[in-house]
Amino acid sequence: MDRRVRLAACLQVVLTALSVTVAGHGPDLRINGKRVNGHLLELSRFGKNPEGGVTRVAYSDVDLQGRAYVIQLMRDAGLDVVIDAAGNIVGRRAGADPGKKPIVVGSHIDSVPQGGNYDGNVGSMAAIEVAQSLAEQGVALRHPLEVVIFQNEEGGTVGSMAITAGLSNDDLARTTHSGATVREGIRRIGGDPDRLAQAIRKPGDIAAYLELHIEQGGILDAEDVDIGVVEGIVGIKWWDVTIEGSANHAGTTPMAQRRDALLAAARYVDAVNRVARARPGRQVATVGRIQAFPGAYNVIPGKVATSLEIRDLDASVIDAIRQDVQREVELTAQDTGTTFTFTLTSDTVPAPTDTRVRRTIDEAAARLGLRRKSMPSGAGHDAQEMARLGPIGMIFVPSVGGISHSPREFTRPEDITNGTNVLLHAILGLDDDR
Amino acid sequence: MDRRVRLAACLQVVLTALSVTVAGHGPDLRINGKRVNGHLLELSRFGKNPEGGVTRVAYSDVDLQGRAYVIQLMRDAGLDVVIDAAGNIVGRRAGADPGKKPIVVGSHIDSVPQGGNYDGNVGSMAAIEVAQSLAEQGVALRHPLEVVIFQNEEGGTVGSMAITAGLSNDDLARTTHSGATVREGIRRIGGDPDRLAQAIRKPGDIAAYLELHIEQGGILDAEDVDIGVVEGIVGIKWWDVTIEGSANHAGTTPMAQRRDALLAAARYVDAVNRVARARPGRQVATVGRIQAFPGAYNVIPGKVATSLEIRDLDASVIDAIRQDVQREVELTAQDTGTTFTFTLTSDTVPAPTDTRVRRTIDEAAARLGLRRKSMPSGAGHDAQEMARLGPIGMIFVPSVGGISHSPREFTRPEDITNGTNVLLHAILGLDDDR
Repeated sequence: MDRRVRLAACLQVVLTALSVTVAGHGPDLRINGKRVNGHLLELSRFGKNPEGGVTRVAYSDVDLQGRAYVIQLMRDAGLDVVIDAAGNIVGRRAGADPGKKPIVVGSHIDSVPQGGNYDGNVGSMAAIEVAQSLAEQGVALRHPLEVVIFQNEEGGTVGSMAITAGLSNDDLARTTHSGATVREGIRRIGGDPDRLAQAIRKPGDIAAYLELHIEQGGILDAEDVDIGVVEGIVGIKWWDVTIEGSANHAGTTPMAQRRDALLAAARYVDAVNRVARARPGRQVATVGRIQAFPGAYNVIPGKVATSLEIRDLDASVIDAIRQDVQREVELTAQDTGTTFTFTLTSDTVPAPTDTRVRRTIDEAAARLGLRRKSMPSGAGHDAQEMARLGPIGMIFVPSVGGISHSPREFTRPEDITNGTNVLLHAILGLDDDR
Repeated sequence: MDRRVRLAACLQVVLTALSVTVAGHGPDLRINGKRVNGHLLELSRFGKNPEGGVTRVAYSDVDLQGRAYVIQLMRDAGLDVVIDAAGNIVGRRAGADPGKKPIVVGSHIDSVPQGGNYDGNVGSMAAIEVAQSLAEQGVALRHPLEVVIFQNEEGGTVGSMAITAGLSNDDLARTTHSGATVREGIRRIGGDPDRLAQAIRKPGDIAAYLELHIEQGGILDAEDVDIGVVEGIVGIKWWDVTIEGSANHAGTTPMAQRRDALLAAARYVDAVNRVARARPGRQVATVGRIQAFPGAYNVIPGKVATSLEIRDLDASVIDAIRQDVQREVELTAQDTGTTFTFTLTSDTVPAPTDTRVRRTIDEAAARLGLRRKSMPSGAGHDAQEMARLGPIGMIFVPSVGGISHSPREFTRPEDITNGTNVLLHAILGLDDDR
């Protein structure tokens, strides 16, 4: 451990005890860009794929190794580290004002199978870097600061859900990529699945939640913008779609007499794309799954199983697109002699970010001389769960080519440094809530 | 065994020996409709499904039982029965003129899994009924008559291919629905896979081949026509079609930046239907298989595996439709940022029926006072293989609702009687080739 870090941490404790703030230093403060990028590189050793990136699925051995590394970094940054009952790693730094709720900043270090080095990891290393910079530069905040490394984000924001909405028995019984159930996994990483209620936080328990993340889309990269100020995390609805026609002999059934479920499906897929693009806005609609039955060269498909996903910041836009799709499929059904059935299988409501948090992020980026853009987050994040507890904000940095969930994921070191500085100054801005 | 049948068979042998023809009786001859329908019902016991129809896949125990029943019927009809090296059941009746090649008439009794009681069985029972009627009514033909019950038609006209084009080692090694390979199956039904060359017949070895079959489409039924005079058996081409785009995050990739392989596939499926219907004629084009990869609600498909089948009596029409599809997919590929690859996996050339045989069938049906219609066979049949040896003809009878390859397959007894009488009189007509 670095002696200067320890010294700085001690100094911070003394300053906090004396209620001395050093707000005057604020505008000139900078994080250590070389260090945060170095930590990111070191973290990428745990679960490294031969072709690059990592496979560090939650609850795996390499996830445990990565978490041990992170806990050490947090301690080096002067944080008091605990693992909550849900298995999240929580590092606390006291605030000068005992009446204040904590400013929480976090992300995750678990990955998808064959994932990259940036999704979650950038926000995690940046949160720790901010704590370390504050400590070594002797900056006392009025609010307590909490750095949270959420467990199993990629498995469905499990750690953040556990401390906000709570986990059901079904959630706990689900088998994860590690082979362990969520229940077993929580035990494996030092949580206690039988005492999850202890980890639950209530609305109003936090002053704010901030998360830095790679964009995962290609917009910032394509438009050469440094920082995305996130307007909110989109709502997502999933449907299973079943189309039924009549399976028949492909050689003996004239074209005009067919009730071809795949022809109907084709028109449906095209219609989904058309109606999603027809209205202004950034909504997306996707058909990701399809299979025809019986599925032979020489049989007209009698049934097709397919899907629908619609995402937008505004739940009413999601519903309007679903209605537009419905109007189209009713015409297709009539035209092709088929029937369509839509079954809603998942419904995540939109999580808007807080106006003040957004403005604070934007001002911080502006003062740092960075180009910025307001944008939705099309992907889900722990922030959407934390929105149940208080105001949230998210900061995006460019991901080259918009690639994510891939070993080819890449964010430039200077963008990580920029994002971490924005995170630092957004925290300083939010701390100053007089 | 019925004594009268034996008596009639003996009489026929005597008449043949005396070279006495009874052509004068010709126009009034009729088969026994009650008997042929009774045999069809009895045959349906072998492999009966609980819900009706049969599962009598080639080389299964019930196929063996059905074949034993058929062999007995053929002997009762006065035929000399042998099983050729390919496992086909061949029943021979001598002709009055020793220089004549045989008129061959046949079909098959194997079924698809969960098949019906009519596909193949009608033609098989009718061929035997014709032989029996000729025998008991003492009609001597100038040509030898052969009734052939081909083995494993549903597995790809295996028995008829074996005696015409021959079987490859790959064909013999193929595993069938029975669990046995074709090689094992041939042995099981009394053939000899090591002596297949003995079963091969050469072009010119037959005077003609005739087959009665249910239509399998719904045209005769819908138009209330008694008899289909088949113009030929369509050619069939199959392609595997692979569409490649770029898999990406469905939440973070704007609609305009996608290279969605499934959107491209949808436009392809619609285009296949459109171009096949755009030209006059009875060609059909079908996309029966489709699967998107990776196949998740929230991932834009990067790859789609699908298929193409085109059928027509005219090989140049098949190629023209393929070219029309190609022009459409080139536009789609450009528009969606995807690539299409077509790989030909099967190519069956069209088998036109013989003009004289067709006319003879039509005249026979006309004399019987039946409504008739010229039409292609959209399905494959043993007749298409037999076309390599000599002139062929096919007679279709209506299938209610055009259902086939299903327990719900049904052809009315009176239509079976009509079809068998047309078969009889077509044989008499062909026999009179002076």
